[in-house]
Amino acid sequence: MNNTKIIQSPKEFWKASRNNEYLKSTSGVAPGYVQTNLAVLPKEYAFDFLLFCQRNPKPCPLLEVMEPGQPEPKILAEGADIRTDIPYYRVYKNGKLTEETKNITEYWSDDLVSFLLGCSFTFETAMLNANIPLRHLEQDTIVPMYITNIQTTPAGIFSGPMVVSMRPIHKDNLVRAVQITSRFPATHGAPIHIGDPKGIGIENINLPDFGERAEIKGNEIPVFWACGVTPQVVALKSKPSIMITHSPGYMFITNERDESIAVL
Amino acid sequence: MNNTKIIQSPKEFWKASRNNEYLKSTSGVAPGYVQTNLAVLPKEYAFDFLLFCQRNPKPCPLLEVMEPGQPEPKILAEGADIRTDIPYYRVYKNGKLTEETKNITEYWSDDLVSFLLGCSFTFETAMLNANIPLRHLEQDTIVPMYITNIQTTPAGIFSGPMVVSMRPIHKDNLVRAVQITSRFPATHGAPIHIGDPKGIGIENINLPDFGERAEIKGNEIPVFWACGVTPQVVALKSKPSIMITHSPGYMFITNERDESIAVL
Repeated sequence: MNNTKIIQSPKEFWKASRNNEYLKSTSGVAPGYVQTNLAVLPKEYAFDFLLFCQRNPKPCPLLEVMEPGQPEPKILAEGADIRTDIPYYRVYKNGKLTEETKNITEYWSDDLVSFLLGCSFTFETAMLNANIPLRHLEQDTIVPMYITNIQTTPAGIFSGPMVVSMRPIHKDNLVRAVQITSRFPATHGAPIHIGDPKGIGIENINLPDFGERAEIKGNEIPVFWACGVTPQVVALKSKPSIMITHSPGYMFITNERDESIAVL
Repeated sequence: MNNTKIIQSPKEFWKASRNNEYLKSTSGVAPGYVQTNLAVLPKEYAFDFLLFCQRNPKPCPLLEVMEPGQPEPKILAEGADIRTDIPYYRVYKNGKLTEETKNITEYWSDDLVSFLLGCSFTFETAMLNANIPLRHLEQDTIVPMYITNIQTTPAGIFSGPMVVSMRPIHKDNLVRAVQITSRFPATHGAPIHIGDPKGIGIENINLPDFGERAEIKGNEIPVFWACGVTPQVVALKSKPSIMITHSPGYMFITNERDESIAVL
């Protein structure tokens, strides 16, 4: 495989990941196809986690939940294998990161339930298509993320604060940015908050809890979206015996088109 | 309580239901507040049922799922008691209707999980507000419902065909009807199908499987929406030891406003 060529189709991406031939970030891969976060948990946690996602759709927009032990995302990615078709995975035991690995076949069991959650790549593409620039892409940095004082709605053993991502938006683009992201409730949807970091418990906008600082220029307003890191932070807090996720930036790619999950 | 006065608030409705002082259909009660279907199942079925709803959001738009044994819908109806605050309930044992009752206190246990699902009253109000007439309301009949050849996406023990409701819409109102109902994904959302009953397995439009016939006049097109009867039919097919629902037409009323669950 020639790594300089951009992979255009999900199937090609699954195969390259499976053979450890593609080991880079999935940003820009298979353009127009929905990319997702992955969270794998033992069945004993699955009802509470599913309920947590149902109650907190903005940080946890569920796209597919697979039956216990089922490694094929039959609805969104027929033919893929969730155990091998992502470049890098992270394995957590009792809430602690124990390994980063290229496949999770050795950890797999009939007891594991896989959750695919929408990721912001989808609405970011839509904003770029509307000529709304995104600072972290201009800077080639990781989007800044913050732990807020907004509490998620607890479910069973899961609870905790919402994590948000921040993108500086020029005031002339503010309405359009709200409109565009509102079309994608399956990938975090409309902003959670506009304009006042302190109002949601962020003391210093220049010191994100995850990711990297993004400069806010004159005439730009900080806009905050619910972030897919939330369910991961919340789940790890409950110290499950095992939890497996994708590695940050190395997403799963589905066979679904971005526009097919848009509302209106 | 004076039954000739229309109840305006959910709290007043809960109290009247609890005291068996209000025993009529909830159509028109507490206008502007979201009414819901109720399904109560033992915990052993809860994960599969939650997954079924997640995979079939159009027939099964989940608004709230309560923790096992929890009778208060804390998110949508703080202060209400799901065991007493609906005028009539239906109790099914092993898939068979065994009782219609004014409260379910004697059946309650810590093992029961309650699901509140969006109902079409919300989008029907929105259509009436836009001057789109609805035949079953003009005729004072029950909306016609049909078992289709569209299969739901199975989840665990639950599977089966989708049930749809039909409303004849004048061709000049067709676009607007799609737009308006699209704003309410939490109450079945956009139509499933427009125009060809046979195409979705309905042999005789004048012989609905549930509800009553609705006349289709010249220049009217039959429009089909996913129906909340679907999860009930699907769940009963699996013959759970116990399942409790509201009685048809006697819905639960939440503290949430219709417009607050609309998208855009």
